[in-house]
Amino acid sequence: MIETDILIIGAGPTGLFTVFEAGLLKLKCHLIDALPQPGGQCSEIYPKKPIYDIPAFPEVLAGDLVDNLMKQIEPFQPGFTLGERAETIDKLDDGTFIVTTSKGTKHHAPVVAIAGGLGSFEPRKPPISGIDAYEDKGVSYMIRDPEVYRNKNVVISGGGDSALDWSIFLTDIAESVTLIHRRNEFRGALDSVEKVQELKNLGKINLVTPAEVVGLVGEDKVEGVVIKKEAEEFTLACDAFIPLFGLAPKLGPIADWGLEIEKNAIKVDNSLDYQTNIPGIYAIGDVNTYPGKLKLILCGFHEATLMCQSAFQRIYPDKRYVMKYTTVGGVEGFDGTKKEAPKAVVKAID
Amino acid sequence: MIETDILIIGAGPTGLFTVFEAGLLKLKCHLIDALPQPGGQCSEIYPKKPIYDIPAFPEVLAGDLVDNLMKQIEPFQPGFTLGERAETIDKLDDGTFIVTTSKGTKHHAPVVAIAGGLGSFEPRKPPISGIDAYEDKGVSYMIRDPEVYRNKNVVISGGGDSALDWSIFLTDIAESVTLIHRRNEFRGALDSVEKVQELKNLGKINLVTPAEVVGLVGEDKVEGVVIKKEAEEFTLACDAFIPLFGLAPKLGPIADWGLEIEKNAIKVDNSLDYQTNIPGIYAIGDVNTYPGKLKLILCGFHEATLMCQSAFQRIYPDKRYVMKYTTVGGVEGFDGTKKEAPKAVVKAID
Repeated sequence: MIETDILIIGAGPTGLFTVFEAGLLKLKCHLIDALPQPGGQCSEIYPKKPIYDIPAFPEVLAGDLVDNLMKQIEPFQPGFTLGERAETIDKLDDGTFIVTTSKGTKHHAPVVAIAGGLGSFEPRKPPISGIDAYEDKGVSYMIRDPEVYRNKNVVISGGGDSALDWSIFLTDIAESVTLIHRRNEFRGALDSVEKVQELKNLGKINLVTPAEVVGLVGEDKVEGVVIKKEAEEFTLACDAFIPLFGLAPKLGPIADWGLEIEKNAIKVDNSLDYQTNIPGIYAIGDVNTYPGKLKLILCGFHEATLMCQSAFQRIYPDKRYVMKYTTVGGVEGFDGTKKEAPKAVVKAID
Repeated sequence: MIETDILIIGAGPTGLFTVFEAGLLKLKCHLIDALPQPGGQCSEIYPKKPIYDIPAFPEVLAGDLVDNLMKQIEPFQPGFTLGERAETIDKLDDGTFIVTTSKGTKHHAPVVAIAGGLGSFEPRKPPISGIDAYEDKGVSYMIRDPEVYRNKNVVISGGGDSALDWSIFLTDIAESVTLIHRRNEFRGALDSVEKVQELKNLGKINLVTPAEVVGLVGEDKVEGVVIKKEAEEFTLACDAFIPLFGLAPKLGPIADWGLEIEKNAIKVDNSLDYQTNIPGIYAIGDVNTYPGKLKLILCGFHEATLMCQSAFQRIYPDKRYVMKYTTVGGVEGFDGTKKEAPKAVVKAID
């Protein structure tokens, strides 16, 4: 059982910054995220894209924003349970919570902060009848380990960056690469589109457009795809089918935790602390909603900060916390480090 | 008459960031500040001190924070009225406002955002009877132009950084420098304390401690100070007396604008937009108060952002603004510049 003061569900920018504000209050944090690395969407979906509206950053790449936050929270030694989705929550008689993940890891804390963003990002599945039965039997919606495709005949479908980039990448590994898209036009980085054109001319990518995969064949695993190209339908033998149609956010199991939900977001009281209808469970960042809510990273930072004050009162009802500015009081890490402004001396002149 | 969309009173971090969020909504801003430069306390009081709790900055000097914000808002061409204090406000029949400064400059806008921080910082005056009559006649509470003291006999009193640093600086300019402090111990940067010791040993600073200035003499201007050192009282001839006892914040004339005030701060509704009891006047950052309020720069950023949405609705009641993420929509400056993420191409492969 992992024990902590504030259990944060979601390791995006808001969840990460929570560790800092909690740390100033001497509260320890542990984060759970379904993705394999911290940073949420910023790391998974657009690490190389610039963000322009983070205060005091005229421009910052999403990946750099995450790196900066990781560095800022380092002194507070957060724990991470990554690549596991928070599935269930149980409230104990003493008012504390146990959260269990998809892999059965259990976490125990007096405060739970849901910083789940728009939810877990899950691949969009194409509407091909019977596709579920082939999942992990030749059908994958994302590529975790390209080596799986060495010397295989691979069919990719999709018209965006993922489909283009993986088609290019797999030409060096797979026996054959077929790229299927319902239009002739692809949408992606110019470099990638031109590279696919070149590989197609060299005969290294087999391009089928405008076309769609409408069926799958095979006994226990994928042995071929049924392609519809204009009026014609035909079967192409293959070992793997990888539809890459992007990711869509889903609130996921959190939706069943008994929280008040409105338009796919968790309703909170915003007059004080972004607490949900269940005392001790807070919702901060893009996952919450209240009148006037804006789904901006900078708003998540503010919500995390106010939430930590309330969490402190819940955990230590008898203590009174007196806020000290970091410029005055410095930052004392749990790792023994201390950062502080150069102090004035008091010294006699004689 | 200066015309703008949002008139911001206070050019500290919160006021500056307001320009950015307003700019995204195509609203123009103009800022008034009593200080001679933008940045508020960060520029005036602690430009060289580190701040540790700005999100995604493990450490940033207050002066650099201001520089970054100035760079971020540059495309939105804010106007500035600096070195003038907002004195009076008049609401016109059409619901717009006219704000007049201490120097009589008039500003007209449909929305006023008070981002006044803790108020205007004013020098603490020593309790010396009759000192008011000598102000600008040899008595100054801050030094704007050191050249004024060339070849003069100057008396400085105080025991902190300002008193130490100006004593050092003026030894090269003034005929004589006397530093008076009620204790033998000074509180300041080690370098400064040691430098004063050295200059005292060289006879370049005349140090009188523990002592206090208890009176002033002179006909139309300061001709000497009355010094009390332990039991003894004596008069020292001089041309200028500069008490440097630090700055203290005062809400100032804003306190008389008919706004609801609680503990030296302006009460706002925080469920939506940080509006005050007077529709069209908002209060954001350290100057406001609401249940759960924290006087942190990062909270001011959030409040400014929500406030701008409400200001937009007030100015354009019939328009509906659809928020676009800057990563997706870019940032279009009023100066014709456009910043945006590299765009995907849509291109056929044949």
